[in-house]
Amino acid sequence: MDATNADSIAAYAGKIKGAWLILRPGATIWNPDGPAMTAADSQTMQENRRRAFAQPGDTSEAARKARQQFNVDRPYLLKKAGALGILTDGSKEQGLMTMSGSPNNVSPLPNVVIAHEDYAMFERLIASGTTPRMEGRIDNTLGKTSVKQWNTVAEIKGSQYPGQVVILGAHLDSWDLGTGVTDNGTGSMVVLEAARAIAKSGLKPARTIRFILFSGEEEGLLGSRAYAAAHAAEADSIQAVLVLDNGTGMIKGQALQGRNQDAQLWKDLLAPVNSLGATNVREGNKGGTDHLSFIPYGVPGWNFDQESRGYNHTHHSQVDTYDHAVPSDLKQASAVMAVTAYELANLPILLPRGNRTPVTPPSVSKPSPGVAR
Amino acid sequence: MDATNADSIAAYAGKIKGAWLILRPGATIWNPDGPAMTAADSQTMQENRRRAFAQPGDTSEAARKARQQFNVDRPYLLKKAGALGILTDGSKEQGLMTMSGSPNNVSPLPNVVIAHEDYAMFERLIASGTTPRMEGRIDNTLGKTSVKQWNTVAEIKGSQYPGQVVILGAHLDSWDLGTGVTDNGTGSMVVLEAARAIAKSGLKPARTIRFILFSGEEEGLLGSRAYAAAHAAEADSIQAVLVLDNGTGMIKGQALQGRNQDAQLWKDLLAPVNSLGATNVREGNKGGTDHLSFIPYGVPGWNFDQESRGYNHTHHSQVDTYDHAVPSDLKQASAVMAVTAYELANLPILLPRGNRTPVTPPSVSKPSPGVAR
Repeated sequence: MDATNADSIAAYAGKIKGAWLILRPGATIWNPDGPAMTAADSQTMQENRRRAFAQPGDTSEAARKARQQFNVDRPYLLKKAGALGILTDGSKEQGLMTMSGSPNNVSPLPNVVIAHEDYAMFERLIASGTTPRMEGRIDNTLGKTSVKQWNTVAEIKGSQYPGQVVILGAHLDSWDLGTGVTDNGTGSMVVLEAARAIAKSGLKPARTIRFILFSGEEEGLLGSRAYAAAHAAEADSIQAVLVLDNGTGMIKGQALQGRNQDAQLWKDLLAPVNSLGATNVREGNKGGTDHLSFIPYGVPGWNFDQESRGYNHTHHSQVDTYDHAVPSDLKQASAVMAVTAYELANLPILLPRGNRTPVTPPSVSKPSPGVAR
Repeated sequence: MDATNADSIAAYAGKIKGAWLILRPGATIWNPDGPAMTAADSQTMQENRRRAFAQPGDTSEAARKARQQFNVDRPYLLKKAGALGILTDGSKEQGLMTMSGSPNNVSPLPNVVIAHEDYAMFERLIASGTTPRMEGRIDNTLGKTSVKQWNTVAEIKGSQYPGQVVILGAHLDSWDLGTGVTDNGTGSMVVLEAARAIAKSGLKPARTIRFILFSGEEEGLLGSRAYAAAHAAEADSIQAVLVLDNGTGMIKGQALQGRNQDAQLWKDLLAPVNSLGATNVREGNKGGTDHLSFIPYGVPGWNFDQESRGYNHTHHSQVDTYDHAVPSDLKQASAVMAVTAYELANLPILLPRGNRTPVTPPSVSKPSPGVAR
């Protein structure tokens, strides 16, 4: 259905009652077994997509905010109109699913992800005038109480500046369709292996190297935010935070995360591991993982660039499993993390701090007054 | 467990009671997102596989038969020992499942296919000394009464020899994890489209062209066997049977199915569609589909070679769905089927018959006396 404003929901009210709804056009999935996409195919798909997601003409900030608020209000309006739940496109190849969620944006309606193939079938049936009937069994429940989680921390003490710290991080939590191997078991294991390698080398880093497996990353960087806040007073003695959270692929290089003045630094840090394929230093910002939590405190934070190795298939899916780990890539990543951490621990200087910015709490979605009953 | 003979089952009896069992090493699935397989990887995998499936040294016919009978007896022995069921490896990439079955080999134990990723995890857990616990809900039931099914038949009457027939075939039945698009909805649609194209062309074939969508193919070519038997008296007037049952891919050519004398014939038949990519004529036998049902009657029967287009992913799986049909390939296949059928219908001669061989009923697996209780 087209539910892009409150009026359209009112207009559809008769059809909404007692129904599960699909609210968006299905994802654009190119058949991976079909012929390769041509430039013309690509253009057609992009145009279809643009049309499907076209926004109203008003590009003012007020209009943008109103649309954003409507997205929050929509499930409340749909629930009032009698909807049972929302179906979301798995949006991956070969029936792979996805999942996500945040305590700061809890929908009042159940939201069920179905395989793209099924979503596309529902779209075709509806387009042809058929109302599909669906049978399912959903056992999930959503608790309202907090659950205590822990970050896991270990360190190799610095021989000269034990109070100054290089942090290597990854996150130990995951979603539960699979066992969370590539998001982020592999990152966690690479951090462990880097620790083992440094310890076993017998080398004594000048600064402390701390290894942290964060928790609650998936729900909004909860563990790293809490860690950074708890250690705010020591932020100026954190040399850098290096995170690995893009799957099982080997490390290709580093995105500078706004610190373009560090391009030469990163070229130098990677020089000893260039022969392993970690060479590329680029301007660019990586989002969505734990290095971000430290940046407001002025701490240099980076998340390595990695070979994709099917991360788009595996992460948040039912095949985020041990088979999808690539051992040779993980060994390479361990070496790169260990070497760069050791170098940062032994640099003659502490890296210049970034600008301190306000630490904003996660934005909590709230429905407009009167919309939630 | 290693359950390769009755003694080993007896030895394991204590562990079998109340358990779901895995009886075979997991499939060898190369991570499709990992590095490409090297020659050394391939050799290692083959050796592992050979070791895992190594048969006892006795290669006599009697020993072979005894092993075959043991495979039939095994689930009965396991059931007697208290097993609850058998888990089978889905054996595909990305969590894709498979399914199959035959009324002639019904196991006394439930047999549940699980994703390769899960099967591999169970193997790892067992190898490390952990007994995995599994939770599932299986609603399937197995009926014991026959279900009536129909073949769907249409034809364009021959203008000169209406009693002589070229059959274009595919099968309309499928398995129900998906909607059966590539096995064999696409074959069925290509046969329909070939019919439409010939009819619309206005050309009048000399012989009748008959379009048959068989049923019961998946359970053992039941529909085509029944059709061939019912039309045995007319077998000598069936010019040929052309089947399309290898997925959604374009037709690459023809395997001669033991009729190597027809190599030039097939080169000639394909000549008008060479420019569409249907060029390759090769010696070889295709198994597992409906052309086989006609061959014992001396009828020339073939199943086209097709581009694979991920058939190994899709068929018998949850993504055997409409999205996985490749329109351009299906148009090509329709043209090739229509053209070759029309040519066969207009050949000056009826093709020489193959040898008639006894029509053997499907072999029905029966446990050894005393094994089934």
